[in-house]
Amino acid sequence: MTAVPDLDAALAAPAAEGGTATVRRARAWLTRAAEPGSVVVWRFVERAGPVAAVRLLRAGRAPDAVQALVGVRAEQDASAADLRRADRCGARLVIPEDDEWPALALHALTVAASGERADSGEMSDRTKAPVPPVALWVRGPGRLVDVVDRSVAVVGSRASTAYGEHVAGDLAHRLGERGWTVVSGGAYGIDAAAHRGALAAQAPTVAVLACGIDRVYPSGNGALLERIAQEGLVVSEWPPGAAPHRHRFLVRNRLIAALTRGTVVVEAAARSGAQATARRAGRLGRPVMVVPGPVTSAMSVGCHELVRDRALGAVLVGSAAHVLEEVGRLGEDLAPPPEVATDAREGLSDIAIRVLDACPVRRGVSPERLAAVAGCGVVQVLQVLPALELAGLVEWTGTGWRVAPPQRVTPPRKEGRPS
Amino acid sequence: MTAVPDLDAALAAPAAEGGTATVRRARAWLTRAAEPGSVVVWRFVERAGPVAAVRLLRAGRAPDAVQALVGVRAEQDASAADLRRADRCGARLVIPEDDEWPALALHALTVAASGERADSGEMSDRTKAPVPPVALWVRGPGRLVDVVDRSVAVVGSRASTAYGEHVAGDLAHRLGERGWTVVSGGAYGIDAAAHRGALAAQAPTVAVLACGIDRVYPSGNGALLERIAQEGLVVSEWPPGAAPHRHRFLVRNRLIAALTRGTVVVEAAARSGAQATARRAGRLGRPVMVVPGPVTSAMSVGCHELVRDRALGAVLVGSAAHVLEEVGRLGEDLAPPPEVATDAREGLSDIAIRVLDACPVRRGVSPERLAAVAGCGVVQVLQVLPALELAGLVEWTGTGWRVAPPQRVTPPRKEGRPS
Repeated sequence: MTAVPDLDAALAAPAAEGGTATVRRARAWLTRAAEPGSVVVWRFVERAGPVAAVRLLRAGRAPDAVQALVGVRAEQDASAADLRRADRCGARLVIPEDDEWPALALHALTVAASGERADSGEMSDRTKAPVPPVALWVRGPGRLVDVVDRSVAVVGSRASTAYGEHVAGDLAHRLGERGWTVVSGGAYGIDAAAHRGALAAQAPTVAVLACGIDRVYPSGNGALLERIAQEGLVVSEWPPGAAPHRHRFLVRNRLIAALTRGTVVVEAAARSGAQATARRAGRLGRPVMVVPGPVTSAMSVGCHELVRDRALGAVLVGSAAHVLEEVGRLGEDLAPPPEVATDAREGLSDIAIRVLDACPVRRGVSPERLAAVAGCGVVQVLQVLPALELAGLVEWTGTGWRVAPPQRVTPPRKEGRPS
Repeated sequence: MTAVPDLDAALAAPAAEGGTATVRRARAWLTRAAEPGSVVVWRFVERAGPVAAVRLLRAGRAPDAVQALVGVRAEQDASAADLRRADRCGARLVIPEDDEWPALALHALTVAASGERADSGEMSDRTKAPVPPVALWVRGPGRLVDVVDRSVAVVGSRASTAYGEHVAGDLAHRLGERGWTVVSGGAYGIDAAAHRGALAAQAPTVAVLACGIDRVYPSGNGALLERIAQEGLVVSEWPPGAAPHRHRFLVRNRLIAALTRGTVVVEAAARSGAQATARRAGRLGRPVMVVPGPVTSAMSVGCHELVRDRALGAVLVGSAAHVLEEVGRLGEDLAPPPEVATDAREGLSDIAIRVLDACPVRRGVSPERLAAVAGCGVVQVLQVLPALELAGLVEWTGTGWRVAPPQRVTPPRKEGRPS
């Protein structure tokens, strides 16, 4: 603890401007000092640079509007403690200066923010503003930029029905099977069902929280969040320990929309938060997808409202294939589900099948890893891999082996029978 | 029977061209001689006139294409028997020369038919062609043109679910309550539920059949069709006794689409007949409305396909209010449900309430009729009517008394909460 220099001393060091550690420290301080979602603060940090911005705020010499938003927090400093606390729970602070920063995805927020007027000071305006985060607290093994590269948000009501949970879970599972990451809010109901569906497919899933990445909120989702942190990512703009204040959910929603290629709303009551996330995705130019339900269900009213809103241009979806038609890459994701041909498997040895089943869908892994998962020797793995590759079942990514993506097949266009 | 002159003699009479009876006889003959849905036949009848058309066909001197479609039926004649048979079951032949012919509604078919090429002779083409009927067999008390003036088609799968039947019945009931006629196909499932819902609201409903108006088809709907004939209308292009051949349903569907202001599909399997009716309505420029359902239900797959087809421009609907937004007259049907203010009723005498409840929604009726329905004297009716009128509860249509239409109220625009 004593080894960590005082914040102001660290920022004043000659190499401060260029040092990543200093920039990270400065951004860590900003995540606690300035409530995320403020255009004014974000612009100030962008223009001054994070280190200079913190120096100015600490000295009380930032522009009045910015200084006012930070208030007494300018005098406090928990940045070193926050970084230590994150480290203890296996988390880190990812900053725009890092390689794993999802710059492309968040670019939509940068563009949108440049069109925003300065904060009017009203909370309702601030929670709506499309502003990039100054940094992201991230807990989990994957590189953020990779994990969210091919991702879809699956969101919906906390007071979900069995129907909605079934659909959310099934959709997330199928998206996961095809190598897509499911992003959601870690809440009860649809969010939890979506995360669980993705985990069941052994696919990465991301929970974007409105509180610290070490908070167990909602309390009933503790085990789920722990599993997401082990196999996917838990992400937040707020520092460790931050409480899930109500308005933070609204600020958080823009991040779910921005990090993903599109947002699927599974169940939503009339004028609900899930609707808001969807509309935000629409404003960022991302596809808005809606799962319909019985018109007799209050939990589908919000979904149907979204489809009926022609200005929004939401698309009704009923399956993962429909979702991939909207967010997928042309020619790649329009393909039918990756069905490993039964006959191709039939000719395989027991070892070959175990190795095939051990291959991950996304990132390639080493033969050693395959051997460990398949429960056989590395030599055996190396013996069967050539046959599996010839059969088009696995492929070498340059760094490892994975399941070969589905063949490009043009799906037959369905048309209503003229009758 | 001997009083009815021979067809050819009737047609040859000097006043034949102008006489409505002769024209009706000629068109009756055509409904049996030429299968409906043929552009070639319809054009020939339009150009030659119905009486001359029949004379030419009987003499074998019609154009080859037309003569071929009629074939040996040119030599047969059941027109007088058909008219008698219709009369016996309380039906009549409504022809374009009649005041009650729904010329305006069917105009869309005339316009569409003028753009059609001559029949290629293939059944699939013929069943798709938008062609006006040469005449309509109609069974029931109302004037056809009045009954279908404000009408909506509610169609769907025969293999419906409890959900679909509930929604169809409820929708039809609410549309009926607001003075709209529900048109459907008299089939099992969604059709039957829609007819029943309308009847329960004491609103007129129209069953457009693919067989003779005196056929009990499907057999299980006998009592329902009987009730529709008593309180609404049973309509068909085919003469009495005609059998419900499979292709006739497809020909019939265009009529359901054309007679109504819009078509609501409640449940439809993938690539189903209900979808075809909806697409036909779309091609005629009529709004296509679709009730969504669980994505897990095979009976909603067709509905969702329709919503997803952007070219069709189908609108998702979940309530009668949504339907009326599409088909209603501006400023009239955008109003919220006609809720007779409870306070307005509270001040009324027992007799006044009974008279109010006796007032029909659509056509005005005489005080004598109101007295009969309300179970009181005409003098009492005449005593309470002025007060009811002053309270804005009833109105004089020029020919009778009816419930006053709902006040014009601009409904508050719903908007997603920014949160």
